[in-house]
Amino acid sequence: MTEYKTFKADDAIAFADGHSELFGEHSKLSAEEMSDGELNQVFRVENDKGTSVIVKQALPYARWAGESWPLTTDRARIEAEVLKLHRRFCPEHTVEVHYFDPEACAILMEDLKAYRILRTELNAGKKFNHLAAQMAKYLANTLFYTSDFVMSGENKKAEVARFLNPEMCLITEDLVFTDPYFNHERNNVEHSILDKAKNLWHDEALKAEVAMLKAGFLSKPQALLHGDLHSGSIFIDEQSCKVIDAEFGFFGPVGFDVGSLLGNLLLNYLASPGLHDAADCSEQQAYLLDQAEQLWLQFSETFSELMRRETEDPMLESPIYQQKFLQQVFSDATGYAGCELIRRTVGLAQVADIVTISDAGKRAECQLNVLKLGRELIMQRNDLSNISQLLNLVRYQQTD
Amino acid sequence: MTEYKTFKADDAIAFADGHSELFGEHSKLSAEEMSDGELNQVFRVENDKGTSVIVKQALPYARWAGESWPLTTDRARIEAEVLKLHRRFCPEHTVEVHYFDPEACAILMEDLKAYRILRTELNAGKKFNHLAAQMAKYLANTLFYTSDFVMSGENKKAEVARFLNPEMCLITEDLVFTDPYFNHERNNVEHSILDKAKNLWHDEALKAEVAMLKAGFLSKPQALLHGDLHSGSIFIDEQSCKVIDAEFGFFGPVGFDVGSLLGNLLLNYLASPGLHDAADCSEQQAYLLDQAEQLWLQFSETFSELMRRETEDPMLESPIYQQKFLQQVFSDATGYAGCELIRRTVGLAQVADIVTISDAGKRAECQLNVLKLGRELIMQRNDLSNISQLLNLVRYQQTD
Repeated sequence: MTEYKTFKADDAIAFADGHSELFGEHSKLSAEEMSDGELNQVFRVENDKGTSVIVKQALPYARWAGESWPLTTDRARIEAEVLKLHRRFCPEHTVEVHYFDPEACAILMEDLKAYRILRTELNAGKKFNHLAAQMAKYLANTLFYTSDFVMSGENKKAEVARFLNPEMCLITEDLVFTDPYFNHERNNVEHSILDKAKNLWHDEALKAEVAMLKAGFLSKPQALLHGDLHSGSIFIDEQSCKVIDAEFGFFGPVGFDVGSLLGNLLLNYLASPGLHDAADCSEQQAYLLDQAEQLWLQFSETFSELMRRETEDPMLESPIYQQKFLQQVFSDATGYAGCELIRRTVGLAQVADIVTISDAGKRAECQLNVLKLGRELIMQRNDLSNISQLLNLVRYQQTD
Repeated sequence: MTEYKTFKADDAIAFADGHSELFGEHSKLSAEEMSDGELNQVFRVENDKGTSVIVKQALPYARWAGESWPLTTDRARIEAEVLKLHRRFCPEHTVEVHYFDPEACAILMEDLKAYRILRTELNAGKKFNHLAAQMAKYLANTLFYTSDFVMSGENKKAEVARFLNPEMCLITEDLVFTDPYFNHERNNVEHSILDKAKNLWHDEALKAEVAMLKAGFLSKPQALLHGDLHSGSIFIDEQSCKVIDAEFGFFGPVGFDVGSLLGNLLLNYLASPGLHDAADCSEQQAYLLDQAEQLWLQFSETFSELMRRETEDPMLESPIYQQKFLQQVFSDATGYAGCELIRRTVGLAQVADIVTISDAGKRAECQLNVLKLGRELIMQRNDLSNISQLLNLVRYQQTD
């Protein structure tokens, strides 16, 4: 146990040296700071043979949009525990946590040195054909094995309490489900789309549907979510992808994680015309729609198979119920994807997919497409019966 | 603090004397045992001037159907804390808890000496015109003020954890939502209805709908429920009714409490032909349908008014959302009422409404009507748009 103090490079080295079995006895260790220190300190600690680990320490505040918000360091515990549990159910695609120190709020974890952030790669027009299949596997396994299908009531309730995570959930409740639908000072709206953003504040039909999705986020603890599964929380290389950054984890609706990732693929799809020339854009968009389709098809196939084979609760073994459950997850995921599109366009936390489009006219056009599709996904989520219909909506939007 | 030992009359007197402000210094106290000691010890402690309190102590086991089940005494804490919280939001219709001792698992509470158990009164053909209005007020206030409409995320999550109540929830999960749909040894099926009970085990469409209702019971913490609001948990006199016995309390779907009470009114309605002669039956049934109607109408009116006036969450202020929420509560309540009808007919815990019908033929006829209505309520719950349609279904059932 170490008392809390903000780590400097030497502290990160001492922490890694004390808790990692990876380094030999006479290793010479060095540390490189990897983060901008806005939310966390992140160091790569490496010996002279090139063996390395990551030390990630939660800071007691967050700096967003220039402001400093106090923020619980308990999120380091949540992150470590969610990753450990998810890794139990999907070791292939969850980063490995070696050690967590609750006093220092620091995690020692696997260094994914050769991996890159998915968002950056997609924005650069890279394509990875294993993305959808691997993330579908991650989603199906982590969500199924932490659900009522397989957990006893007693165990599930205890786990719900262990992962309440009220402060981090509040950030999502505010930034995703509330701010974009009001004239809130935290919003970040470009002048060129101000009129369309204002429409959101008075769109009573849309606000009612977002309220239903928010109510589900508040009170539908179906499974232990990652809670922030955008394309910046996924590391990827040519063979494999791995999920990191689980500090938003809590028990929530299964459709939220699925929808977050789906939404980020669609966001990149709509940003493509601003990021690539016409030929590359067309290829990238075809790739993204294929991955979105595969993500849902393979997720639902694996989740169905797990429900069929592994369900412990005798009532939840009903095949008709299982089919209805999955249809509801699809509808939720579609709605949550729509929320992600909207909040990334007019809310506080924007994404490089759009922000890095240098041509202001193209950027505005992309943003309008994102807002429009976001609304359609939310409003039509109960009428779309499968992923093909959803993707047709996306295609139709674009040529609109 | 007292260490746990099973109270005898003298212990109950000492407990009441030590913690009640009601008795004067030189009171002579006596204690009368009120319970059969199957789940709890209940004593009335009284002084020579007729002032009295109730001492209720949780036993570390339950005796049901001759069997002894170990059962957490933590349910005494749950009961005391739920009643205190519900009393804050509806003091008129919640029994008052004076003191709770966590070591002795004992509660000192208001003695509702002049009140009688609602179930016994209804079975005797008594009518109380204040029942529906008062219980509607209790339900609307206790459920609204413990919901996401008004609680902050942080406070709500902490309260969810404080009232997890896994052991008591498991009893409901098993006895209400599972056993009746399987050939389970805990079931209690009269030979005369065995064929119809067997139908339940193979009714895949019904089991899928019950699975959805069970999934809601497991993972829909909308509000702090009483959790066992049948007509044996309500004390009544000529002016007022008060809710007792909240040891099943937890955060669950709003429709569960509403549906439990509604189901018990309908159960008594269907039992009436076996309990009363034709003229009395007709009057009692008219009374019960009126109360069922008023219960929903006044609950929904008060809950709507509270949503309109008191909602704190800006998204949940949406009037369209609020209307959809209430429609969902109606559908849930209808389904949970149906589950209550079925489990009281073929499950472990039966009720006097039916059991005391001495004519075996009439009893079987009532049971068949209860099973049939139970199934219809569950299957049609999303198609019924209001309480009139629900009551027409009840009337149609009876003349079928």
